Amino acid sequence: MTNHQVRLAARPVGLPKRSDWQFTQEAVPEPKDGELVVQVQYISLDPAMRGWMNDAKSYIRPVGIGEVMRAGAAGKVVKSRHEKFREGDIVTGGFGVQEFALSDGKGVNKVDTRLVKLPTYLGTLGMPGLTAYFGLLDIGKPQPGQTVVVSGAAGAVGSVVGQIARIKGCRTVGLAGGADKCRLLVEEFGFDAAIDYKREDVKAALRQHCPDGIDVYFDNVGADHLDAALVMLNDHGRVAMCGAIATYNATEPPVGPSNLGLVVSKRLTLRGFIIVDHQDRLADMVADVSAWLREGKIAHAETIVDGLDRAPGAFIDLLRGANTGKMLVRL
Amino acid sequence: MTNHQVRLAARPVGLPKRSDWQFTQEAVPEPKDGELVVQVQYISLDPAMRGWMNDAKSYIRPVGIGEVMRAGAAGKVVKSRHEKFREGDIVTGGFGVQEFALSDGKGVNKVDTRLVKLPTYLGTLGMPGLTAYFGLLDIGKPQPGQTVVVSGAAGAVGSVVGQIARIKGCRTVGLAGGADKCRLLVEEFGFDAAIDYKREDVKAALRQHCPDGIDVYFDNVGADHLDAALVMLNDHGRVAMCGAIATYNATEPPVGPSNLGLVVSKRLTLRGFIIVDHQDRLADMVADVSAWLREGKIAHAETIVDGLDRAPGAFIDLLRGANTGKMLVRL
Repeated sequence: MTNHQVRLAARPVGLPKRSDWQFTQEAVPEPKDGELVVQVQYISLDPAMRGWMNDAKSYIRPVGIGEVMRAGAAGKVVKSRHEKFREGDIVTGGFGVQEFALSDGKGVNKVDTRLVKLPTYLGTLGMPGLTAYFGLLDIGKPQPGQTVVVSGAAGAVGSVVGQIARIKGCRTVGLAGGADKCRLLVEEFGFDAAIDYKREDVKAALRQHCPDGIDVYFDNVGADHLDAALVMLNDHGRVAMCGAIATYNATEPPVGPSNLGLVVSKRLTLRGFIIVDHQDRLADMVADVSAWLREGKIAHAETIVDGLDRAPGAFIDLLRGANTGKMLVRL
Repeated sequence: MTNHQVRLAARPVGLPKRSDWQFTQEAVPEPKDGELVVQVQYISLDPAMRGWMNDAKSYIRPVGIGEVMRAGAAGKVVKSRHEKFREGDIVTGGFGVQEFALSDGKGVNKVDTRLVKLPTYLGTLGMPGLTAYFGLLDIGKPQPGQTVVVSGAAGAVGSVVGQIARIKGCRTVGLAGGADKCRLLVEEFGFDAAIDYKREDVKAALRQHCPDGIDVYFDNVGADHLDAALVMLNDHGRVAMCGAIATYNATEPPVGPSNLGLVVSKRLTLRGFIIVDHQDRLADMVADVSAWLREGKIAHAETIVDGLDRAPGAFIDLLRGANTGKMLVRL
């Protein structure tokens, strides 16, 4: 049995290219006592992975050159010498971009695929769902009737942010790139309005679609989207800073918002967060979001590509914004 | 009896000039029922006044052209038809840049000058003190042993921030312009270190003086000081955004921090505040700060100029950073 793997080959400069990874193969490992082996079925591709490829101090150590590319994933336990897992268990965990993963069980969770399909555990019921849930509710604290704006709104996190905000009685406005994504936001995800940042002037469009200003801005993009949102935020507005995908491939320091003085005069709160810190909210998220999924109140989209060999290209597409909803590789 | 006044004559472009105000005089007004007249003894000059001179939507309406320049002040009640005030009462309030003020009593507070001198009620025991107290303790939440950095550290707010932080058991580092101010920070206000931003590389100096990073950054300055602090802030650091004096006279949009992505990866919280929102903390501040003043734990500095005619020049000096501690005009 052979384990095909994708390993980091070089530190990318700007947008990664395929040659920044290499394909390798080795024998499927044998578990020792306290270990298990998972056959990976779905690999989660996430913008945060771009940061892990840099040799820079951050909230998590970089992926080393020659190491299997780090990624969340889901699959089936095929061998277990771990007391908590049995062969046949369906699990999620940080299994990396490979076909088989050896694990000590840390961060591995069993999931029930009778009610919810496996990919959903990597998206709406997984880290992206928790990111949306925590960032919107705990940082954004939206009240009924308030206006919530989210950037990267057609992505795995943004689409859930908008839908939870709508469930909480808010006006929801999404920023996304392209007419297809914007149509999806309104027709599938129930946003009140969508702004195509590739075609529209974001400041003017926010003014048009947020007649009562913005109370909560959930930022996945950074850069000029944040600048535009600051102008429209109401007094005491909250900004959940989740990511800044617009700057992840920057080779020059990005230009910061020119209007940060508004943070003082409008008494804004900008709070950055990394979802690994907030696993204590996982049970609440799963309870609420499962119910909303069951009741049909939350729709979810996935962009699935097949085959390990397509993982690098799919990740590059993700950074280019080619996906809608959760980007996954199916093995 | 004549009331000499300083009125706004023109909206400043960049740094204000004397001709942006005009001197006028009129008869001292007579109070009607429910009103009082105060003879002003000290006028508070504050960086926020620069914002009030712009014709821009903000947290408070602009001063109108031809109106008496808005300012906090302290003085003696000389006539009263208000049930709460008697002739001879010593009071603080928003009396403006003039010799006599007619007031309906709103926002007017009696003060006791037997224990604390009158100017202190406009500084360490006044709005600057409350600004320091609330911003540091309620937003910054410093813990003993943590490192607190404050910009504009020789000013009315910054000097109190550093001293309260020291009382709370923190390492304190102040940013100020000039060797004299920096000496004052260390020798008079007890800062652990002072950085002269006019002479030193702020990033390098912060690295040197904050060996354990920064836990709380109290920002009065904005611009490159904020940029440098973001680099050195520890995970879960807090930024109390009080002001951005470096940008108040900008005629072009200022360049924002290029490293705002650190807010996400370090899970920082940036919170802007305006002290008028937090009057509920006034009693706590007065109790604590009075005690610290009595015990000699807090020193305070004032820069006092004499005469109403010097008010415009003193305000321009304040914006240039010529003062140490609270800038006051004595009549």
